[in-house]
Amino acid sequence: MENNISMAVIKRLPKYHRYLRELLDKDVKRISSKELSEIIGFTASQIRQDLNNFGGFGQQGYGYNVEDLYKEIGKILGLTRTYKTVIIGAGNLGQALANYASFGRYGFELVGIFDKNPKMVGLEINGVEVSDVEGMDNFLEKNKIDIAYICTNRTGAQQVADVLVAAEVKAIWNFAPVDLKVDSDIRVENVHLIDDLLTLSYFLKEKGE
Amino acid sequence: MENNISMAVIKRLPKYHRYLRELLDKDVKRISSKELSEIIGFTASQIRQDLNNFGGFGQQGYGYNVEDLYKEIGKILGLTRTYKTVIIGAGNLGQALANYASFGRYGFELVGIFDKNPKMVGLEINGVEVSDVEGMDNFLEKNKIDIAYICTNRTGAQQVADVLVAAEVKAIWNFAPVDLKVDSDIRVENVHLIDDLLTLSYFLKEKGE
Repeated sequence: MENNISMAVIKRLPKYHRYLRELLDKDVKRISSKELSEIIGFTASQIRQDLNNFGGFGQQGYGYNVEDLYKEIGKILGLTRTYKTVIIGAGNLGQALANYASFGRYGFELVGIFDKNPKMVGLEINGVEVSDVEGMDNFLEKNKIDIAYICTNRTGAQQVADVLVAAEVKAIWNFAPVDLKVDSDIRVENVHLIDDLLTLSYFLKEKGE
Repeated sequence: MENNISMAVIKRLPKYHRYLRELLDKDVKRISSKELSEIIGFTASQIRQDLNNFGGFGQQGYGYNVEDLYKEIGKILGLTRTYKTVIIGAGNLGQALANYASFGRYGFELVGIFDKNPKMVGLEINGVEVSDVEGMDNFLEKNKIDIAYICTNRTGAQQVADVLVAAEVKAIWNFAPVDLKVDSDIRVENVHLIDDLLTLSYFLKEKGE
């Protein structure tokens, strides 16, 4: 039932997951697609359609059981286990990601931070010591890493990616402003922060601001 | 001709813009939708369809003039002027954004950084001094700000947003892990970094990793 789900639906699931967590924190037990629509900002029919992709968890006249739905979406998102992660590049962005408390709560466990700058090596960030990137291949061989966050500059990113691919790291979250070229079946999410700004400038222009 | 363009198309434009910039840097003068498709990863028909939204810039048998297309997309994205920006929250993430060289190159000019921590006030980041957030409303009154980047923690973000709305800042780029509630016509882009991670865990689960 979970096959052939469009990327658009998958990209919406984390948002459902976040909002359902908030409802749970407020001790809300059940919710209709209409109520969910009002807080999450998707239409009620969109919500019903999205959740039908996964078999549908709602009952006519009752709505959705918040906890069940939260757990089911968590399962779909793969949140029933932990993931080992490393950060490459211990600059401001790398440090910011290392300090994001919520990643750990979701099960994304930070086990290593690497940098090429000798001044950064040995520094402790959120309980994890920064290691020299020269020893990274060795570390990756000993530790099965699920996801690597690339926080290097543009020029260093591809080389780092090559090492990660060779070590069979399973996924890359890339913040360097370059679309990485990897021809293995490693999964890559490229984050281009500038794209968000260009969306904003588009809307400011459209509004005539 | 630019009306009623879907959000999906708009979200793809920055990627076209980035790749065209790279082609220009390599001195490529013209390109077919097929060639563009190979480097950018959208289908050729998707590319033709996207660019037709803006009147279409291609010529049968010639392809696209790279420089013209780059300039046109830049115009559509509102990149014919500069935008004044401020950062609220001078922690690691705020500092990382302050140091992103490319934002300035695109015309997003950083004119202020604010923090509530007295230890941060007076610090200079990329040539901009950190000011006490207490004086922000005054600063915003004197300086017409286009875009504010919120890099505070979850609890402080809504209060900061309220000040920004009152001062008629035009757009907010929010990195705090909370969907802001603003009922004016201010444009908000919420960045939820955890959503990317959940997309990755979804794919790892699907692959049976």
